[in-house]
Amino acid sequence: MSEGRAQELMERLVAGERRALAQAITLVESTRPDHRIQANELLDLLCAPSNDGDEFKASAKRIGISGTPGVGKSTFIEALGLHLIQSGHRVAVLAIDPSSLRTGGSIMGDKTRMIELSRSSDAFIRPSASQGVLGGVANRTGEVIRLVEAAGYDIVIVETVGVGQSEVAVGSITDLFVLLVAPAGGDDLQGIKRGVMELVDAVLVNKADGDLVHVAGHTAADYRHGLSLLQPKRPGHIPPVQACSALSKTGITDAWRTIEGLWNQLDSEGALAPLRSRQATSALNREIEAILVRRLLDSDGISQARAKLEEQVLRGDISPSSAAARFTDLVLESNQGD
Amino acid sequence: MSEGRAQELMERLVAGERRALAQAITLVESTRPDHRIQANELLDLLCAPSNDGDEFKASAKRIGISGTPGVGKSTFIEALGLHLIQSGHRVAVLAIDPSSLRTGGSIMGDKTRMIELSRSSDAFIRPSASQGVLGGVANRTGEVIRLVEAAGYDIVIVETVGVGQSEVAVGSITDLFVLLVAPAGGDDLQGIKRGVMELVDAVLVNKADGDLVHVAGHTAADYRHGLSLLQPKRPGHIPPVQACSALSKTGITDAWRTIEGLWNQLDSEGALAPLRSRQATSALNREIEAILVRRLLDSDGISQARAKLEEQVLRGDISPSSAAARFTDLVLESNQGD
Repeated sequence: MSEGRAQELMERLVAGERRALAQAITLVESTRPDHRIQANELLDLLCAPSNDGDEFKASAKRIGISGTPGVGKSTFIEALGLHLIQSGHRVAVLAIDPSSLRTGGSIMGDKTRMIELSRSSDAFIRPSASQGVLGGVANRTGEVIRLVEAAGYDIVIVETVGVGQSEVAVGSITDLFVLLVAPAGGDDLQGIKRGVMELVDAVLVNKADGDLVHVAGHTAADYRHGLSLLQPKRPGHIPPVQACSALSKTGITDAWRTIEGLWNQLDSEGALAPLRSRQATSALNREIEAILVRRLLDSDGISQARAKLEEQVLRGDISPSSAAARFTDLVLESNQGD
Repeated sequence: MSEGRAQELMERLVAGERRALAQAITLVESTRPDHRIQANELLDLLCAPSNDGDEFKASAKRIGISGTPGVGKSTFIEALGLHLIQSGHRVAVLAIDPSSLRTGGSIMGDKTRMIELSRSSDAFIRPSASQGVLGGVANRTGEVIRLVEAAGYDIVIVETVGVGQSEVAVGSITDLFVLLVAPAGGDDLQGIKRGVMELVDAVLVNKADGDLVHVAGHTAADYRHGLSLLQPKRPGHIPPVQACSALSKTGITDAWRTIEGLWNQLDSEGALAPLRSRQATSALNREIEAILVRRLLDSDGISQARAKLEEQVLRGDISPSSAAARFTDLVLESNQGD
């Protein structure tokens, strides 16, 4: 793709052509080196100056939503998405899925999820490609966010499963982090790790319907108490806790009012611009780490030395970490000698 | 620490001195460069040849146990640990905690967990230091396993929370992966990602007590059905599913019999030696990635170039990924020019 073709794809993308968006995402998520060069061209074109003098204008609200399996995340995001579309928004739903490292996808598949929302022309639902942070491949969800924003989606929801790593990742690409939980006894609260709770901007207790309304109320109170014991993410801002039901569609409007209120607060306090700056810096750092290693190890002669050290490790002559230290010496020396 | 001191620490460790084990773990988990050199010396000393002719002898059974918050992991591991100690084993419990990236530790703290087990002189319980794979720090749990094995623990349980990344990590340092789940309706099964299920060697349905005995039976059947639809981790070996109750201590003996049976099968089929070899290779690769980046970025002049590119990213002149590509060019050129 010449610069001219990147320009063309960009123009079709900005014009709202759905197929161009899908093509752009495929390009950005590709691991082929030539695709990466093309993706960088496209991303540079979309990279409008974010600080125009004193003024910062966010292109979209970026909301991370997390929760363990079984809390009703898909149902909630569909209910929220439909509410937002009815209010005139255009909504993109992206998924970070760290568990798909090996094969990708959930048992049920993503096509059966959010059926009603996926039918709307104002919604765009896309499960993210497996990331493989362990394998050194960078997470492209941050770049996909840029693409959907350029395509005119003003609310981006990044969904993540699990407790841990993926929450940290989603925190580095979204403005707000919302934790969805299910009504449960106090025992379960213990399981929510402090590391995750300290990333939280708001907690929603889903499934507050039927027999569970009362339990949901108690759970909300438990979380309020738990959060009051922890240092909040932003000094002076204790995360709000609310109950809702995606199934009976109650509390969804209130939930969004709270999330939007938090976002507007961030914006009006001038906290959004530095937050986005930190995110760009962290994306830069992640990308540097990922490609630096790959490029170094592609050098000639390196793979032979690696195989030899690996043999020694497998024979039990030296530990993996000693071997890695020796190998690094070799790589840096050979690179200097080129 | 001279080689002589590494030798001394090794000898105290092998003699079973508890303080030496704690010191060795602290050393291995330290991020200080001089500590890493010392840790490598110690690990090399402990790195006994694993292939003695045709014979492979494992130093301990390494079992990964995972499950989302609320399934009763701590209670189960305590019950299992106590059972193993009564059978004459020495048990080490380590934790991989990806959620502690920011501050470390769970709300309740690890000291209040497994009280009875932690009192035994045949048990060693240690939460792992935060790993920060995102930050480029290598996971040291694999090395801590070597230390506790050298200290005479013949069963090592590596506990992990969540669904996703941490399961992949635990799979690269343990022999078997056991998933603990709670009794629940069929809906919840959908939430278990295929990626995680394909790592599983056995599933235990905990909390099969009181009113939940019947539900637990149905849940076990659901998992059996789910697993039969997936490609098993080892061809021809469909993971067993059993119910148990850590609270009423029923099914714990059976659960261990199953786990041990699977482990003995691995061993007798000659699958254990290649598995451990793959683990050593993967540890080598992880370590190389982690230290290569760190050492390259420590070079002079590099930080200035980085700051300049970061500025351009923050001004919105170029995308983070383009900046990373340019920066990598600079680093590799400057390294060659040294």
